[in-house]
Amino acid sequence: MATQSVLTSQDQDFPRWYQDVVAKAEMADNGPVRGTMVIRPYGYAIWERIQSEIDTRIKAAGAKNAYFPLFIPESYLSKEAEHIEGFSPELAVVTFAGGEQLAEPIVVRPTSETVIGEFMAKWVQSYRDLPLLLNQWANVVRWELRPRLFLRSSEFLWQEGHTAHASYEDASAYANRIHTEVYNDFLVNVLATPTFIGIKPPSERFAGAINSMTCEGMMRDGKALQMATSHELGQNFAKAFGIFYQSEEGQAELCFTTSWGASTRLVGGLIMAHGDDSGLLVPPRLAPVQVVVVAVRDETEVNAAAEGVTKSLAAAGVRVELDRGRGSFGRRVTDWEIKGVPLRVEVGPRDLAQGLVTMVRRDTGEKMPRTLNALAGEVPALLETIQSTLFARALAHRDENTHDVVSIADALEATKDGFARLAWDVVAGEGERELNAESVSVRCLQRKDGSMPASDEEGDLVALVAKSY
Amino acid sequence: MATQSVLTSQDQDFPRWYQDVVAKAEMADNGPVRGTMVIRPYGYAIWERIQSEIDTRIKAAGAKNAYFPLFIPESYLSKEAEHIEGFSPELAVVTFAGGEQLAEPIVVRPTSETVIGEFMAKWVQSYRDLPLLLNQWANVVRWELRPRLFLRSSEFLWQEGHTAHASYEDASAYANRIHTEVYNDFLVNVLATPTFIGIKPPSERFAGAINSMTCEGMMRDGKALQMATSHELGQNFAKAFGIFYQSEEGQAELCFTTSWGASTRLVGGLIMAHGDDSGLLVPPRLAPVQVVVVAVRDETEVNAAAEGVTKSLAAAGVRVELDRGRGSFGRRVTDWEIKGVPLRVEVGPRDLAQGLVTMVRRDTGEKMPRTLNALAGEVPALLETIQSTLFARALAHRDENTHDVVSIADALEATKDGFARLAWDVVAGEGERELNAESVSVRCLQRKDGSMPASDEEGDLVALVAKSY
Repeated sequence: MATQSVLTSQDQDFPRWYQDVVAKAEMADNGPVRGTMVIRPYGYAIWERIQSEIDTRIKAAGAKNAYFPLFIPESYLSKEAEHIEGFSPELAVVTFAGGEQLAEPIVVRPTSETVIGEFMAKWVQSYRDLPLLLNQWANVVRWELRPRLFLRSSEFLWQEGHTAHASYEDASAYANRIHTEVYNDFLVNVLATPTFIGIKPPSERFAGAINSMTCEGMMRDGKALQMATSHELGQNFAKAFGIFYQSEEGQAELCFTTSWGASTRLVGGLIMAHGDDSGLLVPPRLAPVQVVVVAVRDETEVNAAAEGVTKSLAAAGVRVELDRGRGSFGRRVTDWEIKGVPLRVEVGPRDLAQGLVTMVRRDTGEKMPRTLNALAGEVPALLETIQSTLFARALAHRDENTHDVVSIADALEATKDGFARLAWDVVAGEGERELNAESVSVRCLQRKDGSMPASDEEGDLVALVAKSY
Repeated sequence: MATQSVLTSQDQDFPRWYQDVVAKAEMADNGPVRGTMVIRPYGYAIWERIQSEIDTRIKAAGAKNAYFPLFIPESYLSKEAEHIEGFSPELAVVTFAGGEQLAEPIVVRPTSETVIGEFMAKWVQSYRDLPLLLNQWANVVRWELRPRLFLRSSEFLWQEGHTAHASYEDASAYANRIHTEVYNDFLVNVLATPTFIGIKPPSERFAGAINSMTCEGMMRDGKALQMATSHELGQNFAKAFGIFYQSEEGQAELCFTTSWGASTRLVGGLIMAHGDDSGLLVPPRLAPVQVVVVAVRDETEVNAAAEGVTKSLAAAGVRVELDRGRGSFGRRVTDWEIKGVPLRVEVGPRDLAQGLVTMVRRDTGEKMPRTLNALAGEVPALLETIQSTLFARALAHRDENTHDVVSIADALEATKDGFARLAWDVVAGEGERELNAESVSVRCLQRKDGSMPASDEEGDLVALVAKSY
């Protein structure tokens, strides 16, 4: 089967290409309940790699993992007015449990600000308890009427960080730190996706936040994907839940809180940021399988050589999988290409007779014969080369498709296949409504030099606007 | 504050001692919805270590992680008759979502056999797809009227493995493999808890299983805790969900399935298997913090020395935490003892003047002065010694409190503070009802030599009976 017949091409129908990749790379299936998702082993292995990379960075930033309940009393959500208004239409509600109608309905968490607020109030006593830096890995539920695997699902997996601080400055600095040292570092250095980092305009803020920071990535079709967000919640949740601390001077003071999250949506971002007409393309630093060693035929000598190569790569610290020569070689190669394994080592009888194997790069298709002895020494550096190539490619794609414009009309034109950048003054108010009417939104606000503005910064900001997932 | 006043003693009131430890070691809190649990950072760090150890063993046994939805259509649960009967009273049901009453109520998963059965039927085509070996880490909900933190909670965290096989023999062998190589190996070699492994009597089997294997541990009060279970499901779920495969001969054949799980209950098991009147006692191989380096006073030189010790231990591969000298030394020591950190290194000015620090074992209380240079070289071996000491202590406790008896009356007497072992022939039928009436249950059936019987093995088995959590 030729590669081109397996997947719809991106140019022909990008959404269908996406669905094809998710199915044929065995990433995920639709669950039986509307909008839910079954994450298959290969998709989950990618998520485990994402988790591991993000978790390491979160711990390095001093936050500790904990676990809060799935079920939240409905009354908790109402305590913060904007929060309940933001989430009401998306809630799933348990009304019956243990064989009985419940006296108070229970909400399945759409996010855990409220229940964590309640416990922060209990745990924080004095300034010595601050900052309190918590994170949890969990499933959350937001009812989704137009689900799309990984991108929008009624249940998704994520991490949500929640912190309490003694001052506005400390809270703000910590949210910033997470945004840059955890999220942006992961996105740029592991996921190989260049990002625009900035703040959300007031209309796009998280429900209850005083400032929302975002990392926006550009997908291969020029649309935006919000990859991770960090929120300054000011004293809104502290007020609603009574999170007070006793200051060094003995005064009762309200805390400042933050929250920040990244989700299985990143798997969708990975697919759309790097994939091509042959399938997924996983950056080597992220890939659960960095190298697949493919025995061309199911023959004892070939399999033994392939096994030897696999062992030598594993010993060199490479995440490697062995594909013994069972079944059609062409079909197996196509399947590994769809799965986006960055490097393939083909072990065949003709090459072997000369003491050679062939490396094939997934990103360029380049075929490189190598001696058996040289292989393990070269692979780690080659994987790093592929990593940088993917980042450079994504960066070029983003920059080519980001257009500086001066009017809303030009912004609408430019966002047919990319991002538009223009003065926030031009957009704020009526301009934003005009854009929204055409499904274009303000992805983030930046300073003119591309850096992140403060939450209350006035004037001279630029807006990046785009269609989005 | 003296140690003895912090916790209720085990002899005085074991359940209250347990509650005290959970609270004072900052392991967990009750959640706002009945029976739910907030797992605090220290409790969660222990759970992460349990996860990591079990996950490594599951992967070594060839199973792959995946993720299935939280929500299951109510109709799925009814497909396997014993299964719905077993779980009905414990279900939590979502009837309202996305702002609307739902046409079909949705069940929050109490376990995932049914939804996984549905997808196995889709994924398994031919004998080449078998065995299909899946595992997931997830939260599940079983409504609990008498909750107890970690031991019985309405929501708990666990892993559930689900596999499909071509033959009864293969399914049975794999369930056995998981039971011994994953669970029992973890329990014995990491959690340092000796176990009785055996099969459940028909009355205690998982809903829908043809055989349930269990690892039973003895707690410090002589009661039993079921630490992990593995089930052979025969063809019951394959029949209910249509999990067929095409055999090498081209025939459509029904699969044989298994499932197996271990949960946050293990944290409760850890507390009750090793804890003493000073608190928790975490076996070194499991401990998230194996060594705490305590600066006796908050002085520059002392803190610097403590920091140096911490670094040298970390470099030696020890999981180590530094406690700078802020606050009362006695209070800090008590807190670390309650948390059960296996080894404490005290760094104080008097010792330092002689180039010494003092190691203190949590299990024996033994104090051992050591030169700064010798420390890092000795600690790893000492941690292994503590590990074996804990196992030996738990084994002696178990064996002293397991009594061979010949009658139900004697079994009732023996199970007041331990296990009784007697011929299964004496128990089966009326005997089991008499035991149950006194809250004693059959924990497992074994061969006389203590080995695991086959599911259909007749005669000459012994029953271990006990009160249990």
